Amino acid sequence: MPRWKPGAVERLQTAALELFDEQGFERTTVAEIVQRAGLTQRTFFNHFGDKREVLFGLSSELQQEIIGEIAAGDEALPPLDVVMRALETVADKMFEHRRAVVAHRYAVIAANPELLERELGKNAALTEAIAAALRARGGDPRAAYLAAGLAMLAQQVAFRAWTRPGETRALRDLLPQALSSLRATLAHDPEAG
Amino acid sequence: MPRWKPGAVERLQTAALELFDEQGFERTTVAEIVQRAGLTQRTFFNHFGDKREVLFGLSSELQQEIIGEIAAGDEALPPLDVVMRALETVADKMFEHRRAVVAHRYAVIAANPELLERELGKNAALTEAIAAALRARGGDPRAAYLAAGLAMLAQQVAFRAWTRPGETRALRDLLPQALSSLRATLAHDPEAG
Repeated sequence: MPRWKPGAVERLQTAALELFDEQGFERTTVAEIVQRAGLTQRTFFNHFGDKREVLFGLSSELQQEIIGEIAAGDEALPPLDVVMRALETVADKMFEHRRAVVAHRYAVIAANPELLERELGKNAALTEAIAAALRARGGDPRAAYLAAGLAMLAQQVAFRAWTRPGETRALRDLLPQALSSLRATLAHDPEAG
Repeated sequence: MPRWKPGAVERLQTAALELFDEQGFERTTVAEIVQRAGLTQRTFFNHFGDKREVLFGLSSELQQEIIGEIAAGDEALPPLDVVMRALETVADKMFEHRRAVVAHRYAVIAANPELLERELGKNAALTEAIAAALRARGGDPRAAYLAAGLAMLAQQVAFRAWTRPGETRALRDLLPQALSSLRATLAHDPEAG
């Protein structure tokens, strides 16, 4: 592989997101994406099966990373803490260095109901995979399911803050803050025992 | 309208769910649904636009009921409590008397990725509508978003228990239990202050 190839994925992603944003997902072609990126269709199809994969191609890698971190996590920690540490590690590894692209991706997805449904499906599958990874550590199935659901809700809250214009705090720091906000919301419930 | 009409919707839903379960959603036709229900295609199309609507037709009514309860809720209560009371009231009104049909519907949806994505999209829209209803009461936007997310997670946990074979407790009772389980999961986090 030539030396310039490692940047091709990011160049294609950036070009695709710009075009999706400017003219909509449906109306953008692969030919336009490669032209904007200054690359060839061959390079595009070396990395992506179609234009949809530019948006969702990283989701299996993300899932593998998170599951790997959970499997390697401290056995003494409770399930929720294991998942939160995994999300924090993966935040540094996969998201922190490309906040603008991730924010841009979310804006494009939120504007297209079909893409949004697909994203929600991916998130639900990730939640199930996290619960399965917790069960594989010997955890109680119900505790695993609750921890996975709460961690994914915290992730969603943290992402929302992290991608807000002007926000400078790191995603790894916003994750425990999101969990604290959820804890405070539950604690304010007067029905709490 | 003839006297037997009020039962038509439930007969069509039951017939459709049986057929989706037996032979899959894609392979089931409206003709088969009306034959199984002992009704006419005309009756079917009086109530549903297509076979998909048999599964999702109630979602706008559900949203309206929940939003109505939130708008009418006690102004002194914190947002999460307002939403939970709304969900409990709507559980009695729309779900409790038809547990088998609701459980059957969830099984059909869970077996079909496209239907599942649509269901997740409906749930996300409901979460946004709940947050908007809380903001309309004068609530802080961030608190509204957190309360809506937690309430919908509790709803999901409670539904999962309520639709489990052999479960006899009412959904309205499982809802606060789900919230307590989420609170306990968060409390067990050693990073908690």
